[in-house]
Amino acid sequence: MGQIGGSLDAFIGAVHRRAAIFDHEIELVAGCFSQSPEKSKATGRALYLPDERVYDSFEQMILAEKERPEGDRIDFVSIVTPNHLHFPAAKMALENGFHVICDKPMTLNLQEAKDLVTIVEKTGLVFGLTHNYTGYPMVKEARDMVRNGKLGPIRKVVVEYPQGWLSKDEEHNDYKQAIWRTDPARSGAAGAMGDIGTHAENLAEYITGLKISELCADLSTFVPGRQLDDDGNVLLRFEGGAKGVLHASQISNGEENSLKIYVYGELGGLEWRQMEPNTLLYKTQESQRIIRPSVGDLSAAAKAHGRLPAGHPEGFFEAFANIYRNFAYAVRAHMEGRPADPLYDFPTVYDGVRGLAFIDTVIASSQNDSTKWTKFVE
Amino acid sequence: MGQIGGSLDAFIGAVHRRAAIFDHEIELVAGCFSQSPEKSKATGRALYLPDERVYDSFEQMILAEKERPEGDRIDFVSIVTPNHLHFPAAKMALENGFHVICDKPMTLNLQEAKDLVTIVEKTGLVFGLTHNYTGYPMVKEARDMVRNGKLGPIRKVVVEYPQGWLSKDEEHNDYKQAIWRTDPARSGAAGAMGDIGTHAENLAEYITGLKISELCADLSTFVPGRQLDDDGNVLLRFEGGAKGVLHASQISNGEENSLKIYVYGELGGLEWRQMEPNTLLYKTQESQRIIRPSVGDLSAAAKAHGRLPAGHPEGFFEAFANIYRNFAYAVRAHMEGRPADPLYDFPTVYDGVRGLAFIDTVIASSQNDSTKWTKFVE
Amino acid sequence: MGQIGGSLDAFIGAVHRRAAIFDHEIELVAGCFSQSPEKSKATGRALYLPDERVYDSFEQMILAEKERPEGDRIDFVSIVTPNHLHFPAAKMALENGFHVICDKPMTLNLQEAKDLVTIVEKTGLVFGLTHNYTGYPMVKEARDMVRNGKLGPIRKVVVEYPQGWLSKDEEHNDYKQAIWRTDPARSGAAGAMGDIGTHAENLAEYITGLKISELCADLSTFVPGRQLDDDGNVLLRFEGGAKGVLHASQISNGEENSLKIYVYGELGGLEWRQMEPNTLLYKTQESQRIIRPSVGDLSAAAKAHGRLPAGHPEGFFEAFANIYRNFAYAVRAHMEGRPADPLYDFPTVYDGVRGLAFIDTVIASSQNDSTKWTKFVE
Amino acid sequence: MGQIGGSLDAFIGAVHRRAAIFDHEIELVAGCFSQSPEKSKATGRALYLPDERVYDSFEQMILAEKERPEGDRIDFVSIVTPNHLHFPAAKMALENGFHVICDKPMTLNLQEAKDLVTIVEKTGLVFGLTHNYTGYPMVKEARDMVRNGKLGPIRKVVVEYPQGWLSKDEEHNDYKQAIWRTDPARSGAAGAMGDIGTHAENLAEYITGLKISELCADLSTFVPGRQLDDDGNVLLRFEGGAKGVLHASQISNGEENSLKIYVYGELGGLEWRQMEPNTLLYKTQESQRIIRPSVGDLSAAAKAHGRLPAGHPEGFFEAFANIYRNFAYAVRAHMEGRPADPLYDFPTVYDGVRGLAFIDTVIASSQNDSTKWTKFVE
Repeated sequence: MGQIGGSLDAFIGAVHRRAAIFDHEIELVAGCFSQSPEKSKATGRALYLPDERVYDSFEQMILAEKERPEGDRIDFVSIVTPNHLHFPAAKMALENGFHVICDKPMTLNLQEAKDLVTIVEKTGLVFGLTHNYTGYPMVKEARDMVRNGKLGPIRKVVVEYPQGWLSKDEEHNDYKQAIWRTDPARSGAAGAMGDIGTHAENLAEYITGLKISELCADLSTFVPGRQLDDDGNVLLRFEGGAKGVLHASQISNGEENSLKIYVYGELGGLEWRQMEPNTLLYKTQESQRIIRPSVGDLSAAAKAHGRLPAGHPEGFFEAFANIYRNFAYAVRAHMEGRPADPLYDFPTVYDGVRGLAFIDTVIASSQNDSTKWTKFVE
Repeated sequence: MGQIGGSLDAFIGAVHRRAAIFDHEIELVAGCFSQSPEKSKATGRALYLPDERVYDSFEQMILAEKERPEGDRIDFVSIVTPNHLHFPAAKMALENGFHVICDKPMTLNLQEAKDLVTIVEKTGLVFGLTHNYTGYPMVKEARDMVRNGKLGPIRKVVVEYPQGWLSKDEEHNDYKQAIWRTDPARSGAAGAMGDIGTHAENLAEYITGLKISELCADLSTFVPGRQLDDDGNVLLRFEGGAKGVLHASQISNGEENSLKIYVYGELGGLEWRQMEPNTLLYKTQESQRIIRPSVGDLSAAAKAHGRLPAGHPEGFFEAFANIYRNFAYAVRAHMEGRPADPLYDFPTVYDGVRGLAFIDTVIASSQNDSTKWTKFVE
Repeated sequence: MGQIGGSLDAFIGAVHRRAAIFDHEIELVAGCFSQSPEKSKATGRALYLPDERVYDSFEQMILAEKERPEGDRIDFVSIVTPNHLHFPAAKMALENGFHVICDKPMTLNLQEAKDLVTIVEKTGLVFGLTHNYTGYPMVKEARDMVRNGKLGPIRKVVVEYPQGWLSKDEEHNDYKQAIWRTDPARSGAAGAMGDIGTHAENLAEYITGLKISELCADLSTFVPGRQLDDDGNVLLRFEGGAKGVLHASQISNGEENSLKIYVYGELGGLEWRQMEPNTLLYKTQESQRIIRPSVGDLSAAAKAHGRLPAGHPEGFFEAFANIYRNFAYAVRAHMEGRPADPLYDFPTVYDGVRGLAFIDTVIASSQNDSTKWTKFVE
Repeated sequence: MGQIGGSLDAFIGAVHRRAAIFDHEIELVAGCFSQSPEKSKATGRALYLPDERVYDSFEQMILAEKERPEGDRIDFVSIVTPNHLHFPAAKMALENGFHVICDKPMTLNLQEAKDLVTIVEKTGLVFGLTHNYTGYPMVKEARDMVRNGKLGPIRKVVVEYPQGWLSKDEEHNDYKQAIWRTDPARSGAAGAMGDIGTHAENLAEYITGLKISELCADLSTFVPGRQLDDDGNVLLRFEGGAKGVLHASQISNGEENSLKIYVYGELGGLEWRQMEPNTLLYKTQESQRIIRPSVGDLSAAAKAHGRLPAGHPEGFFEAFANIYRNFAYAVRAHMEGRPADPLYDFPTVYDGVRGLAFIDTVIASSQNDSTKWTKFVE
């Protein structure tokens, strides 16, 4: 794997690297870690990479690696830059024969996302998107329970993603994570809704298997001088009649990273919280169960995404690693001409399109006070 | 006190009775517990009341008690009937000189609510409304913290009230609690939104001191054959610019009575859950505190509404009893010509009006797909 | 009911009063609330009792009430004084024909406890002991589950009762609750072990139905100048082979009133915590269940000791009220010559004896370093 | 790094491998993964190791690696076999110049442990022991708080380690993990007390900085036919006067891996639970705080052992990886002739001695009913 982005002072780049190597399926062998060649080199050295495989630009990396003998070059790139570089990097990698795994939101806007679908379909290469929260074993179990009718037809979904870290104008405090995330040129048209609202949307659709059909959004920018939304509240309607609520925020003061979801059906309900990810609650009128990794009879999906005996907590890195491992399995299957095993699923370019469509739709809805419901159109 | 409604097979009537006597301030001495004289008598006997003070109708009780010598008659009535009887009973009681404490929602509709304001103001008598969730010590503490600026200006409020007990059509299962609550003639124009949505609205406004200025609602009736909404999702906007989300549901399968509220301001956030009512979380970017009754330095309001040392859990009855005790204090102050002590507050006829206005507004909003925001008008 | 002890500045007296009247089965009609006649009168007036039934001493109350006509006198006394007065008050009440309900530990020492058994047996009157924690619905459910073999034969019991309120020498800070509890003349031979260790012992034996057969104790007094133990750790052995741990403390700094119990059997385990009393966990290797009042299929015992629908938390007062209500039922049965219904159980004089024997045994064990195991002898 | 033990069907071997590579400081380049050469080879291939560095025995690995040119051989061995092989493998590795990191308990018995101290001291090489629970950031914070006097002098420590996975005789169900752990020849003289009791002992001493001075133990074997203890309850006394309780169990049915610790001092108390490792509670009589990674002002130690922003849960692997990373830092310091940075601490050979001494002491105490307290002698 060759990484694009993720210099030493970034956050998510190091997560990707650790996730990639976690299951001994992937090796980091090349990288262009920064737009500054010096920073890129320094990062490479800290990772014990040979200088000759640490590049000054992603273009250089892609072209140089392509020239290396088969078996001695990268098989795929991992893109962990700010959002505006996702599309050009992914496009060039794919068009030069490299598989791609990319951070979310997938592109800067919906048009790029659709273009990327075309490229992926044309090249036939593997494309993975790190909506990492779907990698948790208990999320897999939740999806399996919905699929197997344990909840009956779904009536209501509540998905919440409050964070508080942007309660002040951190983007003017020289805080790198804040700066690019609040800059439309690098982040895209949405702030909180793009960065974490898309995770909430993805998680709700992933667990329920339902697609949002229309929505009504109220986005806000609470911190003076901020260019993008830092809070959003959304009413949801799903295909088939389920209703829901989604809210995401970077100004929910004191909240850490409190993604949670409640799904209610005719027969029962589920509750899952990212900050205690190894507990899934399943409740009906008659009983309340705590479902935990490695306890009792779990779905094949949950079992395939846990590594430890009961009571040994796996967390954020392990869920992230599940995405990478499954992507690696799919790359290997592609190399060997086999179909990938659907048990080892991961988010794809189509999830990416829905994320960008979600961003477009909530913004359109929020800007329009005369219409209540805005159709969710990809 | 003379009770109207609350026969043995009711739920809330017995709660009111226990709450009333809890602090030795109130005695139950008369009642008309049912529209069936037999049931009324049977209830009276079970409560060790003398037969002559158990009446066949509330009209009879009010008139007969009025004839008794001063000091030997009831001082106030407690109204715990289905909603459609609240107004006539309260009106007659007030007009005959009795103070009133009444269950919520206050009346069947907004017009009755406004008429009741007029009567209360004209008679000058004490009127209490049992929005009991505001009686919890930690809710008092939360309100005090907001008032004292611990959160800074409020930006966002999320208030959730999921229940699951009406996930099936219990109203056709001869389930008394379900039957009247889903009957517009007795419950009013709203189902879940009237029964519990008003609690959520009241709690949010009570803690924050902010009034909802406009909202956007999506009400649903999921159970076939049901006459009223059993679920509702609402976007909120408050005077002064705060935003919010309110949802309430009787079909959130597996949920018990899971009222919870999150309040976020520029300086910090609060979280409170009714099912674990003795814990209030106060979080900022720098620290997270658990606030508990009788631990450390609490507000005068919190202290005035708890009765036990730390770690001895008070619950639903005690919060309810706080409403009754404070009402009793106000009645006593009225009798003695003193102003009531604001430390011992309780919901009033004006809270009742806001509840009915909330019901009207969410219904109007939900029925109108062409307008996004509906003004909250009392 | 006539109360002995419990003036306005006491803690547990007011708990008893509220618990007594909670279910409309008991009326407070007389009392001797303090050894100071002035305080006693003031308390009586605050409770709206007529002066003539507020007495200067318990002896006076018992004799005067006995002279009143049948039907117009108290049926029983409630004893809520410091421990040293339990025995003389109970003895005199019983010997004058009054039933007795009494706070714990039952007497000042084991000899008094045994004498009390003799008196109760001789008079045939009803004697209740307020080991109130056995009044919680989920404790009833736990006991029922053990009885019905849901856990299989019990192997291990861990019962913990940490408090922190005596971490400093509050007894020298003019803190009434601390003063008598640390005074051997009023409290008895044990401090923490008497005040709360006995609750832990009682709870463990109540839920499991097993009796402690021998134990090994290490009691400590951490606060300089304190006369009694403020901490104790005990290894337990039960009849039949189960093992266990009991610890109780008043110097577990920061703990409120954190009684908790874990019971493990061949088939499964239970966990219950007093501070969140409406949740009982039942776990096996295969599944984990949350058991809650009014949710699903509960035992008759659990149902008989709850009053509210799911999610409406009952707490300390309600559990205490269960003891009083069940005691009242037994008194009524006694009056009517019927046997009491075992569904409505309450702790008796025999539980009291075990409590005092526990105190004696832990003290004997703690003082003896040459013997590991001390037999638990009543 | 060359690994000894840890074939594909083992549990802890894979944990060590993932922990080792987690921070890009260590590479797995050689191994002898099983006493079966076939299984060893198969494991090596699954890990993409070249066949020539997958060995048939640890002796072969150590000798062969020693012959490789400097820079192209392993720097240290990681020992993850059953306990009886720890000592011979560690001894041979050290005596041939390789640093060692080893699973716990360190050796089969106390004599081997002491011999290992001699070898480590003589060779001057780095020896790490994977008492992994000390690697959690919140454990580091707890230790720092105790050191900095936030709790005042420590009075009481309660450490609990209930598991339920051996509630049945899994060792006769062909369950590899159960078989060796219940076999004295491979596990040593203790069962539960050796496998997890030593973790509890280590954690208590690590956080408090206090050493156990004497103890009183009651060990049991509940499952018929089992050769070693599966449950133990222990009273503790620490140097300086603190008291405590330790219990550990493999038959606490339904428990997963529920290590928890409570520490109480004159000024406050701490609570930490391994299954929710990112929450540390700090409570005094005046306030209750939730301490979390990346929230507010933490100790340098806590910060040095976390990798993610607030609310992104790190778990078991990350704590384990902290041990490996710190060990790697120490190895590097050794290579460069620098002293290791004490901020990056890890358990050493001396902790291992205490673990074996603990095992010896609890067994001696449990077997002796005539003496209450057994001195803890290394």
